[in-house]
Amino acid sequence: MYHHIKRLMFTVRVGQPDPRFGNMLLEQFGGANGELAAAMQYSIQGINCDDMALKDLLMDIGTEELSHLEVVGTLARMHLKPMKADADAASHDPLIAIAGGGGVALHNSMGNPWTADYLKVTGEPDVDLRSNIAAEARAKIVYERLINFCDDPTTKEALQFLMTREITHMRAFMQALDSLGKPALSIGAIPPTPGIVDQYYNDSTGEGDDGEVDVQAPWNTAEGIEVVESPALTDFQVLKATPKAGRTTLDAPKRSGGKR
Amino acid sequence: MYHHIKRLMFTVRVGQPDPRFGNMLLEQFGGANGELAAAMQYSIQGINCDDMALKDLLMDIGTEELSHLEVVGTLARMHLKPMKADADAASHDPLIAIAGGGGVALHNSMGNPWTADYLKVTGEPDVDLRSNIAAEARAKIVYERLINFCDDPTTKEALQFLMTREITHMRAFMQALDSLGKPALSIGAIPPTPGIVDQYYNDSTGEGDDGEVDVQAPWNTAEGIEVVESPALTDFQVLKATPKAGRTTLDAPKRSGGKR
Amino acid sequence: MYHHIKRLMFTVRVGQPDPRFGNMLLEQFGGANGELAAAMQYSIQGINCDDMALKDLLMDIGTEELSHLEVVGTLARMHLKPMKADADAASHDPLIAIAGGGGVALHNSMGNPWTADYLKVTGEPDVDLRSNIAAEARAKIVYERLINFCDDPTTKEALQFLMTREITHMRAFMQALDSLGKPALSIGAIPPTPGIVDQYYNDSTGEGDDGEVDVQAPWNTAEGIEVVESPALTDFQVLKATPKAGRTTLDAPKRSGGKR
Amino acid sequence: MYHHIKRLMFTVRVGQPDPRFGNMLLEQFGGANGELAAAMQYSIQGINCDDMALKDLLMDIGTEELSHLEVVGTLARMHLKPMKADADAASHDPLIAIAGGGGVALHNSMGNPWTADYLKVTGEPDVDLRSNIAAEARAKIVYERLINFCDDPTTKEALQFLMTREITHMRAFMQALDSLGKPALSIGAIPPTPGIVDQYYNDSTGEGDDGEVDVQAPWNTAEGIEVVESPALTDFQVLKATPKAGRTTLDAPKRSGGKR
Amino acid sequence: MYHHIKRLMFTVRVGQPDPRFGNMLLEQFGGANGELAAAMQYSIQGINCDDMALKDLLMDIGTEELSHLEVVGTLARMHLKPMKADADAASHDPLIAIAGGGGVALHNSMGNPWTADYLKVTGEPDVDLRSNIAAEARAKIVYERLINFCDDPTTKEALQFLMTREITHMRAFMQALDSLGKPALSIGAIPPTPGIVDQYYNDSTGEGDDGEVDVQAPWNTAEGIEVVESPALTDFQVLKATPKAGRTTLDAPKRSGGKR
Amino acid sequence: MYHHIKRLMFTVRVGQPDPRFGNMLLEQFGGANGELAAAMQYSIQGINCDDMALKDLLMDIGTEELSHLEVVGTLARMHLKPMKADADAASHDPLIAIAGGGGVALHNSMGNPWTADYLKVTGEPDVDLRSNIAAEARAKIVYERLINFCDDPTTKEALQFLMTREITHMRAFMQALDSLGKPALSIGAIPPTPGIVDQYYNDSTGEGDDGEVDVQAPWNTAEGIEVVESPALTDFQVLKATPKAGRTTLDAPKRSGGKR
Repeated sequence: MYHHIKRLMFTVRVGQPDPRFGNMLLEQFGGANGELAAAMQYSIQGINCDDMALKDLLMDIGTEELSHLEVVGTLARMHLKPMKADADAASHDPLIAIAGGGGVALHNSMGNPWTADYLKVTGEPDVDLRSNIAAEARAKIVYERLINFCDDPTTKEALQFLMTREITHMRAFMQALDSLGKPALSIGAIPPTPGIVDQYYNDSTGEGDDGEVDVQAPWNTAEGIEVVESPALTDFQVLKATPKAGRTTLDAPKRSGGKR
Repeated sequence: MYHHIKRLMFTVRVGQPDPRFGNMLLEQFGGANGELAAAMQYSIQGINCDDMALKDLLMDIGTEELSHLEVVGTLARMHLKPMKADADAASHDPLIAIAGGGGVALHNSMGNPWTADYLKVTGEPDVDLRSNIAAEARAKIVYERLINFCDDPTTKEALQFLMTREITHMRAFMQALDSLGKPALSIGAIPPTPGIVDQYYNDSTGEGDDGEVDVQAPWNTAEGIEVVESPALTDFQVLKATPKAGRTTLDAPKRSGGKR
Repeated sequence: MYHHIKRLMFTVRVGQPDPRFGNMLLEQFGGANGELAAAMQYSIQGINCDDMALKDLLMDIGTEELSHLEVVGTLARMHLKPMKADADAASHDPLIAIAGGGGVALHNSMGNPWTADYLKVTGEPDVDLRSNIAAEARAKIVYERLINFCDDPTTKEALQFLMTREITHMRAFMQALDSLGKPALSIGAIPPTPGIVDQYYNDSTGEGDDGEVDVQAPWNTAEGIEVVESPALTDFQVLKATPKAGRTTLDAPKRSGGKR
Repeated sequence: MYHHIKRLMFTVRVGQPDPRFGNMLLEQFGGANGELAAAMQYSIQGINCDDMALKDLLMDIGTEELSHLEVVGTLARMHLKPMKADADAASHDPLIAIAGGGGVALHNSMGNPWTADYLKVTGEPDVDLRSNIAAEARAKIVYERLINFCDDPTTKEALQFLMTREITHMRAFMQALDSLGKPALSIGAIPPTPGIVDQYYNDSTGEGDDGEVDVQAPWNTAEGIEVVESPALTDFQVLKATPKAGRTTLDAPKRSGGKR
Repeated sequence: MYHHIKRLMFTVRVGQPDPRFGNMLLEQFGGANGELAAAMQYSIQGINCDDMALKDLLMDIGTEELSHLEVVGTLARMHLKPMKADADAASHDPLIAIAGGGGVALHNSMGNPWTADYLKVTGEPDVDLRSNIAAEARAKIVYERLINFCDDPTTKEALQFLMTREITHMRAFMQALDSLGKPALSIGAIPPTPGIVDQYYNDSTGEGDDGEVDVQAPWNTAEGIEVVESPALTDFQVLKATPKAGRTTLDAPKRSGGKR
Repeated sequence: MYHHIKRLMFTVRVGQPDPRFGNMLLEQFGGANGELAAAMQYSIQGINCDDMALKDLLMDIGTEELSHLEVVGTLARMHLKPMKADADAASHDPLIAIAGGGGVALHNSMGNPWTADYLKVTGEPDVDLRSNIAAEARAKIVYERLINFCDDPTTKEALQFLMTREITHMRAFMQALDSLGKPALSIGAIPPTPGIVDQYYNDSTGEGDDGEVDVQAPWNTAEGIEVVESPALTDFQVLKATPKAGRTTLDAPKRSGGKR
């Protein structure tokens, strides 16, 4: 059950409303990595969660994100309000100006309606925690970019607060993942196939005009890794239980008759 | 530049086509955690990437996922084909049957069209790698569930191969993240606010009918963490530079006159 | 600011899980007239609202709908849980079964992701209240239909509670609309054009095979209404400041030369 | 069956094309409250309607809205046409300029494709009429805002005509709702639960920094209303048939052992 | 301007309602190749069209498709009506049953809302006519598949009528394209680059396990065609004004140092 | 199976990055007629195709379009890159700037996520080829418009190359359609109804204010065509097996009693 208190988690003030910035700020209201996405991802994972400790964590943070949604929405509205009457302001987001009368809506900065397709919810605790860690990292960098585009000092303070909380949440989800005590690559119950799991397929080769190269790096040189060079271009029999005899190789394609 | 070879990365065979399973399998063709989503997420990150080592990794795996898309599509088509003529089969996915004539389409198991909203691409290397690690973990668990719903041994072999590769990719992305040498919580360039970053807000309290409780766990007991109890219900002044004097507290709400 | 309490607003119990019904129930979780739609519509109107009395109402009900979302989600999960392991159950919603592991997701009964396109938010108080009255009426009838499709007595009790609250909310929004004291047809500030506002266009005429008729009813017979018969088929000059002389009428279309 | 006459319901003329305004005008062509939405909502309700009087009304107005769609589309095209060749004009809606060659498309002012998610169709006559009354109110205010952003006198005349007709339709739907003779709160067939229906939950409390307060208003003071204060924060037993004995209250949460 | 007549273009009768078939039939009501898509594609092209002959054609057929929409909707409703009360029927389309009360909605057979993304409108007459020819071909094959899944003779008659009309329209669009007198490959005003336009890139090579081969066919053997074998795998210099000297070839990739 | 080579099919260079143009260019990256749409439409048709010659063609061109996607993406990124730091640049596409850090994403020029709804895949070879011919014509005109909006000579060279290839593909699909040897109007297996197939319905009549007329043209004058004038307005009995006796005509509508 939820209760709402008529105070914001962070008091927002705006010196000079900046409709263009207000439009950008909608990314964190109704955008893919925004506060509703965070609130819903964690709260719905929480509803599905049978591990009562994780459920508590998910509901704690899911609820905090609702409070953030309210902060961002209140802040964005202050910046967007001039859109109702000023055509130049309105041109930054005519959907807000015309359909919304200058109020916030659950859209991103390009007017896309918020969609549950933004959410990652699998019901597998360690998998969901990884999705949450990544979600917090994304939210952090988005707030940082907003701060960089923002000229208003008091707006920046609010964004700094919200950005900070994403790091807090990211750490909590990492602690929760650690607390499960599962080996990092042990997802689910069915083990991967030995041998194949250690093959690295070098599917992109050559060098490009802007410095693109084929590198040697931990992922293809670490102990135990077997590099398979250009598997599409070689006879890649390891992947078949019973390789067909007489397979036409690429070196000598049939070209007579109806075939090329 | 891409080249296509007319062999599958894993030869697929189907004993008895199972249209209901074919419909489920579309999750990994046109679904949120499927092969097109993986191929596009990594390849587009690759186009945007200025770190040539990471770019190579992203293009290697992005390209492999295209080959997986082809494997899953070919396998799904074998299971879906009876839908063209059999009304009972068709009822599992009338969109495939009627609009698609029994062929695969870029839909998930409920007929939703694939959308780029599934993708997580920020252009920040360590953030994108975390999104990729989570994406691989999700793909792994989805393949595992498909295997559990599958009755056909040769189909299971193909799924086991594809599932295994997700673990391979997950490890490679983890190695790549390690190779960047950034502290885990250091996202972007702007540091979080000290103090606030160490506060844990206990926003969900009480006990529920199904065993829900308020727990003590690493995320609220680790050294350095300050727990803020029920911030919405208390005077939460730490978040304001200049707390208003005379704020009405919850204990004594004004109710006279026009206000309640 | 929000606080969450680990008790449901209505304790839910399920006798026999019914995955088919659980799938239907998703209409009120992630569907167009469901609880998230209600919670978001009212809460976002509340953020935008400058009338403090209306804002209080909108936040009261918006918050209650969040608690309903939690009730519906918990109830749906109980019905959907068998989908994780049972293929027959899973076939009612393979997206839930495969991608979600039998947990709820913000989808409707056909797997469509929740979208902010469901919301109606204009920032004009009397207009938004009308949208809310209509939204509550829709939610009520949807709960009634769910009750009619439900076999489980304890599930029905929860739905009866939720359905009842929609009527409570509908009345509150009607009282709020009344409290504004605006004439029913006085929307916004620009008055409609006299004369034209009183014309009723009879744009659909004739009689159909299933009893369709052209009726006399209050909307075309009330005092002051002027019926314009089949405006598309007659010279409809009232709508033009300066009717063109010599307009070709339908009775005598030019057909010579290049024109027909 | 439909017939089209090659005259507009309102002759449109444009003095100076204004691509920025043309982009805004798309709200009423392919937007959520625009003419296609109106035409489809009423016409599809009409197809589903068994009440022949209402069906006639729905087809009359649904057809008129198609004629409005044609008027708005023709007007928008006149304003958008410069986008085909002028890069500054094109920047207001590059989708129109590049993909559409300066012609109208079924998008809103932010380029979102029209979607049937905009529609509200339940098949319950009194519910659908309420949705229609709200839809007309929304369309009216959107036209008013467009008039306020418009500099071209002849364009304004057309918008004034279209805005006026929304009031006409709103009144007709209100008359139709009255003609059904149902009590306002009597939706569907299942009555709400007495007692619970008269409870008003004060779910949002306290006072905010911008004047937010807890009000006394008709919806929580009218005769018969029982206010439940902060239900999430109190023992809210009325909602449970059999309250669990020994429920841990919020005043004394268990914190020992594994639980907090 | 539109006028509606209360008779269907084809009288529909249904012997035994078949909800499963009714669900399939929604493909032609609210689906990608259905009647609303056709009506909107042609009518909007018509609004944008400056060629008065083509405009007449587009409005003639666009209007006919509206009448078809009404026929399909009426027919689908007859088949879907049992969904309101029968849970087995409802399970074929719970969205129709629960949210729509058994009435039609602008969804396809999998419940996806109709979207303007289905439309192809460029404003270039010959291009749009090609899109329309393809659209009619698609609509024809979809009706044929519906006929093949239909058991009700009178329903089949209606579908046969509608299917026939698609061929009529396809021919009319082909005649219109011919009447423009443009060479088939002359799209727009900028000519393609000679030489490059005649190159056929053999980007998919080899032989597959199910009979996939590299063929010789008109498109790579016709006079004037130059086949470029596996361009990605060869030095493809024709595409660069100034090929870089010393490009590393694939045969001898650099592997020393930091690069692989 | 796919292999990627780290060279672009066309080397891209940009003189002066133009973020506004970069935003427009996204139409061909993640837009409805862009390169991913082409790549997916042909490749998925290829997976479904049982005709090995067509399958080869579809995979050849589908693969080439992937290489085009890479070229367009690389080019767009060069133009979009300033968005990361420059607020004026960012205002052309804040989604790219804020969420994407100045990198490309699978969006169109208005930020809409790429969706599989753009694709036309029926599994009927001659139908799919017509969809592909139309798709290539659309892609050609879109590239032409982009060239017309582009100021950068080296960017124009790349667009000219890509535009040229669309004509190459269009011709190949036309040759493939010819090679099937089917009569142009023979779609599928069920023949249209003689008589009805030759009727042209003149559903849009009259003359408009901007020169709209009812024309005589090949589609309504060719030999064998029977024009039906204004079918909605006349007794259109040909469409009913058993016309109802005593149908009320439009000339004499019943208006007494309850009916109008």
